[in-house]
Amino acid sequence: MNSEASQALLRALFDAAVAAADPFRCLPAYLPEPPKGRTIVIGAGKAGGSMARALEDHWPGPLEGLVVTRYGHKIPTERIEVVEAAHPVPDEAGRAAAARILNMVQGLSADDLVICLISGGGSALLAAPAEGLTLADKQAMNKGLLKSGATITEMNCVRKHLSAIKGGRLAAACAPAQVVTLLISDVPGDDPSVIASGPTVADPTTCADALAILDKYNLREPAAAYEYIKRGHDETPKPGYPRLARATTRMIATPQASLEAAAALALASGVTPVILGDSLEGESRDVALVHAGIAKQVARHNQPVAAPCVLLSGGETTVTVRGKGRGGRNAEFLLALAVALEGHPRIHAVACDTDGVDGTEDNAGAILTPDTLARAEALGLRAKDFLANNDGYTFFSKLKDLIHTGPTLTNVNDFRAILVR
Amino acid sequence: MNSEASQALLRALFDAAVAAADPFRCLPAYLPEPPKGRTIVIGAGKAGGSMARALEDHWPGPLEGLVVTRYGHKIPTERIEVVEAAHPVPDEAGRAAAARILNMVQGLSADDLVICLISGGGSALLAAPAEGLTLADKQAMNKGLLKSGATITEMNCVRKHLSAIKGGRLAAACAPAQVVTLLISDVPGDDPSVIASGPTVADPTTCADALAILDKYNLREPAAAYEYIKRGHDETPKPGYPRLARATTRMIATPQASLEAAAALALASGVTPVILGDSLEGESRDVALVHAGIAKQVARHNQPVAAPCVLLSGGETTVTVRGKGRGGRNAEFLLALAVALEGHPRIHAVACDTDGVDGTEDNAGAILTPDTLARAEALGLRAKDFLANNDGYTFFSKLKDLIHTGPTLTNVNDFRAILVR
Repeated sequence: MNSEASQALLRALFDAAVAAADPFRCLPAYLPEPPKGRTIVIGAGKAGGSMARALEDHWPGPLEGLVVTRYGHKIPTERIEVVEAAHPVPDEAGRAAAARILNMVQGLSADDLVICLISGGGSALLAAPAEGLTLADKQAMNKGLLKSGATITEMNCVRKHLSAIKGGRLAAACAPAQVVTLLISDVPGDDPSVIASGPTVADPTTCADALAILDKYNLREPAAAYEYIKRGHDETPKPGYPRLARATTRMIATPQASLEAAAALALASGVTPVILGDSLEGESRDVALVHAGIAKQVARHNQPVAAPCVLLSGGETTVTVRGKGRGGRNAEFLLALAVALEGHPRIHAVACDTDGVDGTEDNAGAILTPDTLARAEALGLRAKDFLANNDGYTFFSKLKDLIHTGPTLTNVNDFRAILVR
Repeated sequence: MNSEASQALLRALFDAAVAAADPFRCLPAYLPEPPKGRTIVIGAGKAGGSMARALEDHWPGPLEGLVVTRYGHKIPTERIEVVEAAHPVPDEAGRAAAARILNMVQGLSADDLVICLISGGGSALLAAPAEGLTLADKQAMNKGLLKSGATITEMNCVRKHLSAIKGGRLAAACAPAQVVTLLISDVPGDDPSVIASGPTVADPTTCADALAILDKYNLREPAAAYEYIKRGHDETPKPGYPRLARATTRMIATPQASLEAAAALALASGVTPVILGDSLEGESRDVALVHAGIAKQVARHNQPVAAPCVLLSGGETTVTVRGKGRGGRNAEFLLALAVALEGHPRIHAVACDTDGVDGTEDNAGAILTPDTLARAEALGLRAKDFLANNDGYTFFSKLKDLIHTGPTLTNVNDFRAILVR
């Protein structure tokens, strides 16, 4: 397999992973029976627009509703209103949408059905500050969380306890109507209470847990938010809470299913797939070092499997920002991988966010070839310097090795594939 | 397999890894033919004493020499003098031994043979400061390196350029005698020029490389050492240098061979071995997160192989010291693994240094069981707090889960095994 074919295969693997999570393909099979009463569709997430449209296309009865998605992720719908808001830092549009959604599910009857469409990013998009807090308080805390090195699970625990809608509060507001939540997972373990901070799912985490996370990362600002959690008065609905009795969840897409789809394509292409994990975590550059070590083991010792093979992994790494550069987790991972592999002649790799947006940039991720470092040096670019400055986007941009997909309208977290020829 | 059997298997896997690198087993097959002239044995490393003794036991002719090993690693020898010195920070004993060794190889003839016994740790044990530098300069720089987060390859590059004996300078001093170096590898790629800073091997690294590493980690102290490297006057012998023409190397033990030995025992015990890599690097706690992710993938999805299996890896992680606790890389790795696994009921693990000394403590490593966190909590110990304080030794000590072997008299780097039942 030459370099062009290797790059084409890696790109095809990423596309297969994204396609497996496309709501137009995976949502219809999970629709509930139409109710005797009204059907209200609500929801939030990067896949909100595409989930709403896929639902409309296949729903046999009357329908109304409101779904919020990220700026740039809206697609045309006919019966469900789709609005856009900010991610990863919430804005006024998200706050207004959350308030409208909470209002929309007031006064429903037991004959009514609420279909809630939830996908990654929904946590920031459904911004309803708890009583006494402002959106600015939530925004400031969110910025602190994103820079702290906290895991997404930790960030969502804090968010739930600063919210009037997350952690099961939305489903409680829908009672006595039936609530069916269709989920696209972007979190380790695919726990519905974690995805988008689980607005329709009982919350096992407590104010005390949220406080421990703030203390762990030394996040004391803004004081109003910190003190609100520290007071611990307004707890989320816990498992067994009666107003959640008619709320159920259905998982329509997961990181694992997307990795399996990529693995099937690799196998059909004569390359042995090795799925390392659907939810790997850790500092991006160190996760890259471990991936590099495993890839070198394949190249040198044909372990854990013989080449040609592709190492596949999902999950969300973290970047502790030390520099002033541009780039998301995937660019950082791939840049660290390039440094560690030192131009290994048999290794290509791709790392992309399946939502099509790596961090806050316009790319999904990037691609690494055996001559990445050599081409960079020819341009006068030192990979280690760019890594020290967290500047992966600029590095791969100058090499013209960014991968651009635009918003994919779904989100099953990051996708990494390392091909050893 | 119950918990007792799991722990026993993990301990047996570690013992098998160490045994595969035992000089008494692996050295005799690599001895050269006796020379026409004298045979001089020199060397340094944690395995110095056992390598010298194994050589004595099998050498047919006359023999003399001097080998330096770490304090506590000396064993009785008859013809080769073995002296002890400090590791990882060099001391006066190492400096004196290095001077004596350099003196011993002066004036040899082409009929003479030098057998050089090199193993991990030899870099610190053979302390011969370059002209104009003091041992205190080297010690201070070494302390800075060990705390910086630099890889062992990077540390050795710097050490070579502050030394009068490393980076091929020792072999150059032996010319015109034949030099056969027997090596036990503890470095990624098993490169003889890297092990113990390659005293008998041409050095491809330059003063400029060493300077870049000092700048990368912002190591400017002591000024004399920094300025010496910055001046760049005293370069090491490069490949092709005539005085190294009669110097050859033989690898007698490697991390990979030890992992293979553990893998063979696992297989014989009905547990599928998965060798992830013989030289994984990265910050210990992040490397632990990736291992945890792979172990969970086995438990949840039977990937990359079905349970029961054991994930095996070698190589040296790094610890960026932020806290004030006690513990080496392996205790830190295992503590982070415990936190990440959250008491997973099917996972046991062991992490140990094959030299029997984790960092600067008296333990080789530790063992993790499904109830590690629960037992800790019962004692009022919060694993996350100990991790934040880099205090893995204390944590596992209080649980009575440290592994003590004493010095093993060999060194093929760290050994990690994660058993998923």
